[in-house]
Amino acid sequence: MNEDIIARASGIISRNIGDSGYCALALIDGDGYPHASTISPAKTSGIRVIHFCTGFGARTAKIGDRAKASVCFNSPEYNVTLDGTIEIVTDPAVKRDAWYDAMSAHFSGPEDPGYCVLRFTTERYSLFVDLKEARGTI
Amino acid sequence: MNEDIIARASGIISRNIGDSGYCALALIDGDGYPHASTISPAKTSGIRVIHFCTGFGARTAKIGDRAKASVCFNSPEYNVTLDGTIEIVTDPAVKRDAWYDAMSAHFSGPEDPGYCVLRFTTERYSLFVDLKEARGTI
Repeated sequence: MNEDIIARASGIISRNIGDSGYCALALIDGDGYPHASTISPAKTSGIRVIHFCTGFGARTAKIGDRAKASVCFNSPEYNVTLDGTIEIVTDPAVKRDAWYDAMSAHFSGPEDPGYCVLRFTTERYSLFVDLKEARGTI
Repeated sequence: MNEDIIARASGIISRNIGDSGYCALALIDGDGYPHASTISPAKTSGIRVIHFCTGFGARTAKIGDRAKASVCFNSPEYNVTLDGTIEIVTDPAVKRDAWYDAMSAHFSGPEDPGYCVLRFTTERYSLFVDLKEARGTI
C-alpha cells in the first residue's frame, strides 16, 4: 500500500525538478526557530535523496556540516513531507552532476566557489497523495 | 520600499485563504527535527497574523500552549516566509469567526471538541515578490 503512495510521491517530486520546480525547505535557526523557505530541487532519487543547488549564504550557514531538515512539496491536492538531514556536498563530481542551466544566471560554473550543492537524505516520510495517506521511516 | 513588498505579500496570502489556499507550516518535533506540512489559512491580517483551522492531533501536540513556527507561501515566482509563534486558540468567538464551509466535512460545527484553531503571529518576515526582496521584524 505504502509503495504505491511512495511511487506517486516520487512522481510529484520528479515533476518539480529544476527552474520551474520548487518545494519548501525547513531548517532550524541558531535561535531555535524553524525557518521554511523556497528552493528548487536539482536532482532526486525517489523520496530518498534530493540534491539542491544554491549559493553559500544564510541558509547554508544554518546547515554547517549537517543539520536536521524537512522538505515539503505541496498543492491544494497533495502533501509530500520528508524529514531527515541535509549536508553540504564537497565532491566536485556530484556538484557538476547537480548543475543545471538556470544556475548559470548566478554562478560561472560548477567550480565557482560560491556555488553550493546540498544533499538531503530522508529518514521519515509523511505523504498525502490522491486522497491516500502514508507515513513511515526509511 | 519594504511596505510595497509587504503589501504584495499580503495580497498573496489573502489569495491563499480557505479550501483552495495552502501554505507550508513548519514546527519542531519533540526530537528536534523541523517538520513542514501543508495547511490552509482560514483568516489573515496582512503578514502579521494567520489563523488556521485544523483538528487536534499530531500537529497540535507539537504546539502545546505555544511554539516557534514558520509559515511559507511559495511558487516558482515568489516566496513569503514568516517566522514567529503559534498557539492554540480557546476563545469560542474567535473559533466561530475562523470557521469556513470546508470544515463541515470534518467537524459538526465550531463547537465540535475536535475542532482546533491555531493563531500564528509573525515576528520576522523574509519576502521575495516580483523579483524584490524584503526582510525585517515586526
